[in-house]
Amino acid sequence: MAEAITKRSVDYSRWYLDIVKNAGMAENSDVRGCMVIKPHGYAIWEKMQRALDRMFKATGHVNAYFPLFIPMSFLAREEQMAEGFAKECAVVTHHRLKAIPKEGLIVDPESKLEEPLIIRPTSETIIWNTYKTWIQSYRDLPLLINQWANVVRWEMRTRLFLRTAEFLWQEGHTAHATQKEAEEEAHRILEVYRSFAEDWMAMPVLTGPKSDGQKFPGAIYTLCIEAMMQDRKALQAGTSHFLGQNFAKAFDVKFQTQAGQLEHAWATSWGVSTRLIGGLIMTHSDDGGLVLPPRLAPIHVVIVPLGKTDQERDRSTKAAEQLKEAIVKIPRDDFFGYEPLVVEIDKRFNQAPGSRFIDWEIKGVPIRIELGPRDLAQGTCVVARRDFPGKEGKTVGVPMADVPTKIVALLKEIQKNLYDRAKKHRDENSFEVNSYDEFKKKIDEPGGFLWAHWDGTGETEKRIADETGATIRCIPFNRKKEPGKCMVTGNPSEGRVVFAKAY
Amino acid sequence: MAEAITKRSVDYSRWYLDIVKNAGMAENSDVRGCMVIKPHGYAIWEKMQRALDRMFKATGHVNAYFPLFIPMSFLAREEQMAEGFAKECAVVTHHRLKAIPKEGLIVDPESKLEEPLIIRPTSETIIWNTYKTWIQSYRDLPLLINQWANVVRWEMRTRLFLRTAEFLWQEGHTAHATQKEAEEEAHRILEVYRSFAEDWMAMPVLTGPKSDGQKFPGAIYTLCIEAMMQDRKALQAGTSHFLGQNFAKAFDVKFQTQAGQLEHAWATSWGVSTRLIGGLIMTHSDDGGLVLPPRLAPIHVVIVPLGKTDQERDRSTKAAEQLKEAIVKIPRDDFFGYEPLVVEIDKRFNQAPGSRFIDWEIKGVPIRIELGPRDLAQGTCVVARRDFPGKEGKTVGVPMADVPTKIVALLKEIQKNLYDRAKKHRDENSFEVNSYDEFKKKIDEPGGFLWAHWDGTGETEKRIADETGATIRCIPFNRKKEPGKCMVTGNPSEGRVVFAKAY
Repeated sequence: MAEAITKRSVDYSRWYLDIVKNAGMAENSDVRGCMVIKPHGYAIWEKMQRALDRMFKATGHVNAYFPLFIPMSFLAREEQMAEGFAKECAVVTHHRLKAIPKEGLIVDPESKLEEPLIIRPTSETIIWNTYKTWIQSYRDLPLLINQWANVVRWEMRTRLFLRTAEFLWQEGHTAHATQKEAEEEAHRILEVYRSFAEDWMAMPVLTGPKSDGQKFPGAIYTLCIEAMMQDRKALQAGTSHFLGQNFAKAFDVKFQTQAGQLEHAWATSWGVSTRLIGGLIMTHSDDGGLVLPPRLAPIHVVIVPLGKTDQERDRSTKAAEQLKEAIVKIPRDDFFGYEPLVVEIDKRFNQAPGSRFIDWEIKGVPIRIELGPRDLAQGTCVVARRDFPGKEGKTVGVPMADVPTKIVALLKEIQKNLYDRAKKHRDENSFEVNSYDEFKKKIDEPGGFLWAHWDGTGETEKRIADETGATIRCIPFNRKKEPGKCMVTGNPSEGRVVFAKAY
Repeated sequence: MAEAITKRSVDYSRWYLDIVKNAGMAENSDVRGCMVIKPHGYAIWEKMQRALDRMFKATGHVNAYFPLFIPMSFLAREEQMAEGFAKECAVVTHHRLKAIPKEGLIVDPESKLEEPLIIRPTSETIIWNTYKTWIQSYRDLPLLINQWANVVRWEMRTRLFLRTAEFLWQEGHTAHATQKEAEEEAHRILEVYRSFAEDWMAMPVLTGPKSDGQKFPGAIYTLCIEAMMQDRKALQAGTSHFLGQNFAKAFDVKFQTQAGQLEHAWATSWGVSTRLIGGLIMTHSDDGGLVLPPRLAPIHVVIVPLGKTDQERDRSTKAAEQLKEAIVKIPRDDFFGYEPLVVEIDKRFNQAPGSRFIDWEIKGVPIRIELGPRDLAQGTCVVARRDFPGKEGKTVGVPMADVPTKIVALLKEIQKNLYDRAKKHRDENSFEVNSYDEFKKKIDEPGGFLWAHWDGTGETEKRIADETGATIRCIPFNRKKEPGKCMVTGNPSEGRVVFAKAY
């Protein structure tokens, strides 16, 4: 039984957790900071994985798998990395338990490891340590590898999907012969992420570099996709780092160039994680539950046969099954990742129709088809779209024979509508701000993306963060060429950057 | 450059490692016992995952994800589990490093965890602790959940794919209202595993329960699929456990039955791992390299255009590209998991044709197409199948227009041939043995599967293992009804069981 969902207008953050819970997506485990990803949440992750994986492969990448454990000394080799991650590492120090009579299991002190192992918070170090033997010559480059894996960062304040001690992600790690190629790769992947966010998640994003204050430990620069949630806060949804030669130098990865010289390889790394599921929820869902873009929906259509008598129920169930058969036969295409449309039939006649409808609304199924005796008598059905709840989204009297064609068109329309709606929301909540006073007034109410001039220094960035809680989310590629003066110091600025409060 | 592969007849175990290395499948990492799965090895794992995942979903299962960490006390709750895994656990005891001037990073002693966490060696405990809140009523059952994950067992003697400290696997964990349903589930999954092993891996398997001495810690009984490798040793390839109510009792998981009583739920668990890749290699490969069954081959066809002059090379490359286009357009079907056929074109004209061919043989690509100037002049090509190396597998003068059709038929034929060949090998190396003397003579030379009578006791089983190194691999479902006398004690036996030396 679903419990009531807190309204967004009452408490956005409780609404979020209610959605995660009621839609059966995830829950906290008894292990501090670690979540259990429940079947409906994991099914969305699987859809995301499939789509991203196809895009990575289409751009020449292959998958591999590197160890979960990283020797402590590896982390120490790259200074920024050690600084960035040392404080949040799960550390393995022993490799055996032993049973003590009456006490039970204890950690066997004699099994202490010579060198502690940390659980990967990210894999640059272990991977570049491996690349050392893989890269000898320019002929071995580029090396374009991705890994799907779990990582651990010992976060103190966690929130389901958005920030958890263990999370699932993909991490790409590439090596190149030249700086130019590595930088092109970092940009290519950012474009993959943008396209995934916008075309699959229906979540519009800004693209561009982070400020130095927000870049990844060990990167020369970090590119990002940045989205706006319904509460006007920002979510960093994916990052692509140009790492220069930092890791090649730390792990001594040199290759022979075509001209016969020895040079350090150039690197990128990039990742998106289960955090995207949080972003998906906070971009589209409503007070009635989850709203899913059709391209990432594990179930595309639910058919709810109705009827009061056994005969009516038999008839509507049979019609539902025929309809399902017709829909799943729709040829696979690129739009749905060459996977068949997934149709569920809800046969819970012992529950009231309204409560059956609500269950599927909570789960975010894009289209619901209702098959009642009166509809059937006329050879029609009711089609309800999830993105417009209630009467607004219902079409009655849809001829059964038209359903398969109509379904495909409607799924595509819903995908587009969700994107357009989210983009409108973002654009309406993006403001150019011209003084620090105005900035301080607007950052909490109404909030949103504040485009402001900044002098490019870390000091000013920090001061703004300390005083307002807002950070620079992105220096958008597509910003206007508009020199100006920093809203705080009055020093020259090359153009506006985007500030926001963020998850 | 590939190094020479040791011949199987010289040293099977070195041959195996040579194949793993030269085909680019995996290598040892700098972390003790952990492997790096390289792109070609991982691509095979991905094919296995896809096929298995489809089979799990077709039998009603869904995926989810549970934490990597298990509180030490959870393991202690199920006695057999604690006994079975305590000695090989990676233990997390701290959650922070700190930098000490001049010393570098150390484990911060102030970050010691109140309760140590172990890295999951298997997830029954954390999952049943979670199921406690998911299962209240018979309506919540059955719960049919699978997880794709990494697990860690601190093995002292490791071998790539076959036994590593960290490995990848899937683990199913189901809960049922009755013993009957749980037992049916354990058998249903064994059938999924059998079908995957035989129909996809082309690896024939025996199916049946393990002896009590070989069952999983915490299981009432363990069902297995058991395969014979080329060196006549056995490989346990997958297990499906009926767990009774052991974990429901350990974690207090009770549900209300339809009649209103409170009862403990019934459980199964089941898994296969990256170990299967080792089994795949040792079932089919030869002295020339990897041999892959087409249904699991990441690359189905390699086209090698040939030519000495630029004009010849242009022409054969163009023909290769046209051929590739025709092959990838072949409609997706169930046999290949609804994935398109993957075709590579080898344009390395700067290398000798022979060495180009050998590279693809090492990697196990099922079909190679050679396009030379003379072939092209006649509108034909040469088709070589990997399962018959050398001239025997080559067909010259295949008309280009016939290639797509021929390719599909040939891939299916290769799949069947590999299975038939492996089954013949197993059958020819399976012997009924009627005395312990005969057993001791045969177990090392010729080795193989020895079908012998056994009195059903752990003592006899242990004695045989101690004296000969052979274990009971399986009590096959399909054994003859043939009462007899234990070859060791002369006590009554219900039928023959299968002994072998095993990986």
